[in-house]
Amino acid sequence: MIEVTTKVRVRYSETDQMGYVYYGNYPQYFEVGRVELFRHIGMSYKEIEDSGILLPVSDLAVKYVSPARYDDELSITTFVKKLPEGARIFFEYEIKNHEKKLVTTGSTTLYFMDKKTGKILRCPDSILEIMRPFFE
Amino acid sequence: MIEVTTKVRVRYSETDQMGYVYYGNYPQYFEVGRVELFRHIGMSYKEIEDSGILLPVSDLAVKYVSPARYDDELSITTFVKKLPEGARIFFEYEIKNHEKKLVTTGSTTLYFMDKKTGKILRCPDSILEIMRPFFE
Amino acid sequence: MIEVTTKVRVRYSETDQMGYVYYGNYPQYFEVGRVELFRHIGMSYKEIEDSGILLPVSDLAVKYVSPARYDDELSITTFVKKLPEGARIFFEYEIKNHEKKLVTTGSTTLYFMDKKTGKILRCPDSILEIMRPFFE
Amino acid sequence: MIEVTTKVRVRYSETDQMGYVYYGNYPQYFEVGRVELFRHIGMSYKEIEDSGILLPVSDLAVKYVSPARYDDELSITTFVKKLPEGARIFFEYEIKNHEKKLVTTGSTTLYFMDKKTGKILRCPDSILEIMRPFFE
Repeated sequence: MIEVTTKVRVRYSETDQMGYVYYGNYPQYFEVGRVELFRHIGMSYKEIEDSGILLPVSDLAVKYVSPARYDDELSITTFVKKLPEGARIFFEYEIKNHEKKLVTTGSTTLYFMDKKTGKILRCPDSILEIMRPFFE
Repeated sequence: MIEVTTKVRVRYSETDQMGYVYYGNYPQYFEVGRVELFRHIGMSYKEIEDSGILLPVSDLAVKYVSPARYDDELSITTFVKKLPEGARIFFEYEIKNHEKKLVTTGSTTLYFMDKKTGKILRCPDSILEIMRPFFE
Repeated sequence: MIEVTTKVRVRYSETDQMGYVYYGNYPQYFEVGRVELFRHIGMSYKEIEDSGILLPVSDLAVKYVSPARYDDELSITTFVKKLPEGARIFFEYEIKNHEKKLVTTGSTTLYFMDKKTGKILRCPDSILEIMRPFFE
Repeated sequence: MIEVTTKVRVRYSETDQMGYVYYGNYPQYFEVGRVELFRHIGMSYKEIEDSGILLPVSDLAVKYVSPARYDDELSITTFVKKLPEGARIFFEYEIKNHEKKLVTTGSTTLYFMDKKTGKILRCPDSILEIMRPFFE
């Protein structure tokens, strides 16, 4: 399993008039977590893209457990619990506030796509090789 | 069943460097659809809030079927397929582009909450009464 | 002079916990106005980009006069008061609410840029020709 | 003078299809810088708000010097170059990328406002006292 935690501080712009983080901002936090997971295992999402591979999202799910507020320091923990199979890679997320209270859980499915042709690709061996040690 | 369609044009700010609408912007489109559904049946979401009732989201799911692009005119169709039960109300969404191609489907669960106390409320009778004729 | 008015309704996501539209969302409204000005005179900003010309912003100024609130219907009036000179085009904006109260004024300077080379370009003749009749 | 530098990493959501940070996202970065300046001198913007004082923005100016890209680590330096006079406080900003290249400069004017009454206030003495040592 790969598990990486990163932090974000809630920006004023991310709140809404209910006084909480707007529900539509969590996918952005998940993306921050995902990118840091890649960086942590030694790949940069930017480099993956520069090599001609895109990773669009096909499915998103979010469960809102308790609200986050302006200036809260949130911990985003991102999990890859099994190696990509075929073209898809599955991420899970847990966001907690500074009191360790669970704020949100979620998941996204992404797939590998050739930037030029738009064709769906199997997960490249170079990525599988970097990930495999975490599952042994 | 309640079914209401509204349109949005994709803003430049809503694209990302992949050249598509950023995946995290669809919850915002769903919210636009939801608000227009309320307006269509004769309630304003603003008035619900002004009367002391908030409607936070507890669950979100999005399925990304095909990409939307800058300046696309999108049709957001929002459905309430059954009357709220207890405190919860369930919305479904379908977003199509101007060629009627399906872009995204999704759903959200919202619940009624007292603005002052933060307590969960049953769906107010005033709202049930406005909705009931659509299910007869 | 070219002057075009378009409308947007304030989205929940665009408010912040002060209960007003977040100050950083107005540039996005200005962009909506700008794009509609282009469309109105018979050019599509999308087509300009597809033809290999980008229009990045070099300067932005915003004056916040009175707050806009959730669900307000805002009128964005966009002005081009003189023909582009050299590489630059200057837009001015006025945003009013449904009571005709002035919410925001602003301006942006944009310049024409070759998408491939990144070089700054003079305003293309094709664009000048479409604009000229408005200044005669 | 007060001068504080903080860092943000460009999120995928903050790019647009031009491949750069969307011009409308810089006010959000300025806000991050402003909040960190307050925190650095020992005040929390959150606490100012909780004490019943809001700080809306009345003027914004941004100069876009060179583009920022996805995953760039940006340094936001925020300056208060003189003590607030009357109700207003003036912030200046400089954003540089990891190669120390200047990306953006800007400024905002904010004013102190009573949360309940909406009235404009002189800068509270408690804030002036915290700031004064930086100007001696």
